Amino acid sequence: MSSKTRVLTGITTTGTPHLGNYVGAIRPAVAASRDANVDAFYFLADYHALIKCDDPARIERSRLEIAATWLAAGLDPERVTFYRQSDIPEIPELTWLLTCVTAKGLMNRSHAYKAAIDANLDAGEDADAGVTMGLFSYPILMAADILMFNAHKVPVGRDQIQHIEMARDIAARFNHLFGNGREFFVLPEAAIEESVATLPGLDGRKMSKSYDNTIPLFDGGAKRMKDTIARIVTDSKLPGEAKDPDSTALTTIYAAFAGADELAAFRAALVDGLGWGEAKKQLFGRIERDVAPMRERYDALIAKPADIEDLLQVGARKARAIAAPALATLREAVGLRKFVALTPDEAVVLRGRQLTQAGRTWNTNTVSLNYLEVVKGKPKFKQYRDADGRFYFKFFDGDGRLLLQSDGFASPKDAGQRIAQLKAAAAFALQPGETPGEGVQPNEIEAALAVLAAE
Amino acid sequence: MSSKTRVLTGITTTGTPHLGNYVGAIRPAVAASRDANVDAFYFLADYHALIKCDDPARIERSRLEIAATWLAAGLDPERVTFYRQSDIPEIPELTWLLTCVTAKGLMNRSHAYKAAIDANLDAGEDADAGVTMGLFSYPILMAADILMFNAHKVPVGRDQIQHIEMARDIAARFNHLFGNGREFFVLPEAAIEESVATLPGLDGRKMSKSYDNTIPLFDGGAKRMKDTIARIVTDSKLPGEAKDPDSTALTTIYAAFAGADELAAFRAALVDGLGWGEAKKQLFGRIERDVAPMRERYDALIAKPADIEDLLQVGARKARAIAAPALATLREAVGLRKFVALTPDEAVVLRGRQLTQAGRTWNTNTVSLNYLEVVKGKPKFKQYRDADGRFYFKFFDGDGRLLLQSDGFASPKDAGQRIAQLKAAAAFALQPGETPGEGVQPNEIEAALAVLAAE
Repeated sequence: MSSKTRVLTGITTTGTPHLGNYVGAIRPAVAASRDANVDAFYFLADYHALIKCDDPARIERSRLEIAATWLAAGLDPERVTFYRQSDIPEIPELTWLLTCVTAKGLMNRSHAYKAAIDANLDAGEDADAGVTMGLFSYPILMAADILMFNAHKVPVGRDQIQHIEMARDIAARFNHLFGNGREFFVLPEAAIEESVATLPGLDGRKMSKSYDNTIPLFDGGAKRMKDTIARIVTDSKLPGEAKDPDSTALTTIYAAFAGADELAAFRAALVDGLGWGEAKKQLFGRIERDVAPMRERYDALIAKPADIEDLLQVGARKARAIAAPALATLREAVGLRKFVALTPDEAVVLRGRQLTQAGRTWNTNTVSLNYLEVVKGKPKFKQYRDADGRFYFKFFDGDGRLLLQSDGFASPKDAGQRIAQLKAAAAFALQPGETPGEGVQPNEIEAALAVLAAE
Repeated sequence: MSSKTRVLTGITTTGTPHLGNYVGAIRPAVAASRDANVDAFYFLADYHALIKCDDPARIERSRLEIAATWLAAGLDPERVTFYRQSDIPEIPELTWLLTCVTAKGLMNRSHAYKAAIDANLDAGEDADAGVTMGLFSYPILMAADILMFNAHKVPVGRDQIQHIEMARDIAARFNHLFGNGREFFVLPEAAIEESVATLPGLDGRKMSKSYDNTIPLFDGGAKRMKDTIARIVTDSKLPGEAKDPDSTALTTIYAAFAGADELAAFRAALVDGLGWGEAKKQLFGRIERDVAPMRERYDALIAKPADIEDLLQVGARKARAIAAPALATLREAVGLRKFVALTPDEAVVLRGRQLTQAGRTWNTNTVSLNYLEVVKGKPKFKQYRDADGRFYFKFFDGDGRLLLQSDGFASPKDAGQRIAQLKAAAAFALQPGETPGEGVQPNEIEAALAVLAAE
């Protein structure tokens, strides 16, 4: 396990990002992703989107727009793990394992669910009217999102703290039931975002799609942004009249982009009688300095959805290199491993003893020995020199199965460099001359490398 | 779609089968599996087992014992699709898709859940005390089990009818929300087993683990079966005294194995004064005639868990060849497909038109065209003669991606035979000389073959 703090951020995929989303969520998250002490995970929460939205076209459009927006805003998929939730089949499977240990009472106490009940009762409806099982049980899916990667911290607003507490409860329950002293799951912590900047909208209220007062980020290009800014509500003071800089959303939005000096100059100009029309032009110009280069990247990205798909597939491979071996351990813990025979010798050695395996202790008198798997070793590289005088290596999994056969190298150092590269790389890519073992899939090689990397 | 009726049976994996399970469930199900008009699916319901059981060793042992029991009892994995639920990752994923369309009110009305509430309230507890989300939401998992394979009929006892009705409700809701006239799911029907034979146990009550009155099927061998039969309760009449054949479970158990003539002779002998000890020996002998050969197969199977594993993996491949393309269609329907670009030409053709795709009609004016996938064709075999004079074929998926390159054949007929074999086989196996397309996984080839087979 690396010593970095693992931070996980889910991005809902039901809307089109606006300027308020950029300032309040995207920009700070992208800045946070550059922290060298952080191992950051960002995912498009499209399984969650299904709870709120049964319009497939909207979900599809939103997923693509949001992926392109985050990439255009500077999220670096080489540095972070950026993936789409629905590309990780381990997540719904973990969701079921967690569902079996989650008390229904815990879900009953969910604020979001209780709010839905209250609204129904106030309207004279049945308490559960219109409540789907998706709405009722999504804290379990959210727990799976977090626990799948053993995230230490999850940045959330105050309204989401309860979900992190639920994930902790569920994790602790699973650890208690199946861990036998082993902590399968890190208990995640909520990283509360106290100072989330909320941008005012056209009418001065919080910028929000539900108030229909948003300024688009990329949608409609510079022209639509300019036209929308022109609609920000101001008082009716004329050019030349002194204006109160705090009487309109203009100043707050300007402040979200400008440095202290720029802001002071803008405020002073308003007091000195700058016309509202001219002030809006200046605001537009200031935002465009930041947004125009991003919009250019956004337009290039959105025109090539297959390229975004490729990036997300790389992200999915990175994520699954962690998720697949983690889920295998959890499946084993609950009793869902494959049937594998011990050799008679191993059975003799183990019979009547305590067998410690995957952190659990089995009393081999009470368990039919035939189908206990032998204690797995770690994945291993083996270097050797072949008859042709060149230097090779083989990579084996914990069962001794050949995963990868290298090409021949001129020196042991060259072979060692390729091994180091394999260990360090986030995603596995076959090099010319290398051959996977028979029937071995790339994700198995990645999973074994991830086991080594996690040590 | 074949014209056979698809019948699906789940087998819970938390106990060790006893003689009552054999007579009441296993024997009739194995007989039913031989019906030529039926396409039968049998699965080890180990995700369900997690709801009731947090003892991993018990789940592991039970899964293996039950798999070996059904195979020993004559279930033919060549004829039926016999798989382990937890080997089908499409099932938990479909469970989530269905969770999002299932009304919580539907789960509130589950008999099993209401019984748990009543028991809690009677005991003065909180209504949901000890109720897990697994218990509350397992009808959705069960719906996914059934709908994943579009089973027409599900043999169930009367207590399970409600679950089939729930699966129908959930299927109808999904069809309505996303089908646009298309029926993604067949509405399954419960096949009520009115005449399930319940065998009496040692004390005359229904044979059941909870009464501790069971006769083992294979466990402990012939000796334990004989010893247990010796403990069947009888009256204290001595040898030579006339006995009422209906005064003990002996006769009913005998009847479950014997023909009419054998049974009549057994009853007559009791009336004629056959001693209870001798009668028990005769009963044991009669049962052994059926069970001994099965026990021999069982012992051979259980000693080689890896062989059972191989059979289950073949079953999983057969099941996933259906599940994977079905889930891909459902993911597409809800809005979770991959981002794929149209070529500019295709975009021009489609712009402003209605695009019918996967059964849904998209208005291409309202959907950003870039990421609409082109209408997929069907997977295709293409045969050709190469420069070497030999006959080859290539197999492509609906996007025109090369899935499989054949070896060269001496005649077009030989090539055609291999194609016919590929189309007919349940599981795909690469033949010498064949090469999968770059990056193509065997399950993708199976999925494409399954699409052809389903036509």
